[in-house]
Amino acid sequence: MKYLHTMVRVNDIDASIDFYCNKLGLKELRRHDNEGGRFTLVFLAAPGDESAQIELTHNWDPEELGGGRNFGHLAYAVDDIYALCQKLMDAGVTINRPPRDGRMAFVRSPDGISIELLQRGEALPPKAPWQDMPNTGTW
Amino acid sequence: MKYLHTMVRVNDIDASIDFYCNKLGLKELRRHDNEGGRFTLVFLAAPGDESAQIELTHNWDPEELGGGRNFGHLAYAVDDIYALCQKLMDAGVTINRPPRDGRMAFVRSPDGISIELLQRGEALPPKAPWQDMPNTGTW
Repeated sequence: MKYLHTMVRVNDIDASIDFYCNKLGLKELRRHDNEGGRFTLVFLAAPGDESAQIELTHNWDPEELGGGRNFGHLAYAVDDIYALCQKLMDAGVTINRPPRDGRMAFVRSPDGISIELLQRGEALPPKAPWQDMPNTGTW
Repeated sequence: MKYLHTMVRVNDIDASIDFYCNKLGLKELRRHDNEGGRFTLVFLAAPGDESAQIELTHNWDPEELGGGRNFGHLAYAVDDIYALCQKLMDAGVTINRPPRDGRMAFVRSPDGISIELLQRGEALPPKAPWQDMPNTGTW
C-alpha cells in the first residue's frame, strides 16, 4: 500500500498554480484536460519528492468551494522557514501563523486549504520580524 | 521541500484507528497526548511508506466535524483492490464507489474523509460482485 496524493478542488487553476508552484515552490508534474467531464487535473509535488503528490481538480463549471472541519491541512518540511515565509509575504500571501518559534508557520491556498510549513531539523533562532508578528485569521 | 502529512480531525479516536488501521491497513507510527491543549495526535502511514503520513487530530472537547468542498480525498495505491474492498465491506464499511473497473474505489472514514483506492499497475479483470455493484452516496 502506498500513499499517492491528496486531492483538493480549485476554482482558479492559474491562481492555484501561482500559489502552489511560483510562491510555495512545488512543481507541476502533469496535467490532464477532460473535455467530456469538463474538468482539469493537475498533479504537483515538492521537487525531489515526486512520489507524494497534490492533485488539483478544477471543475470547469463554477462551484462554491467552502471548507469543512474534518480536513485539517497539508504539511511540508522546508529548508528555511524564514526565507520561504518572506517570499510568500512579498508575493502577497498572508502568513496566518508566522514562524515566531523558527519552527512552524501556516498559510492558506486561494481556496482556503491550510498549509503547514515546518522547519526541517532544529528550529531556527527567533528573528525579526517573525518573532513578534501576530496571528492573522485562522488556519 | 518534502511532503510530511495530511492532517484530518477525528471525533472518535478508537473508531478512527479501527477504520484506518484494522480495516484499511495503515499502521500507527506514534501517538502524542497533550493534556494542556486537550488533544491527541496520532500519525499513521502505509507499511513500508512511512515518509508520507496521515496525522489524526482528536480534540478532547467534542466538535462538529463537517466536510467542505475544497478538500477532495486521500489516495492510496493497493495491491489487490478486490481483496481490500471485500475486507472493508465484510467489516461494515460502505463501498461508495465499488471497483467495477478493477481499478478505482472510494470509501469514507468515520468522519467523512473520502479515501480513493487505486489498483497498483494494470486494472484487474472485471469480477463479481464488483462489476455490477451500484454507487452508494457520494465520495
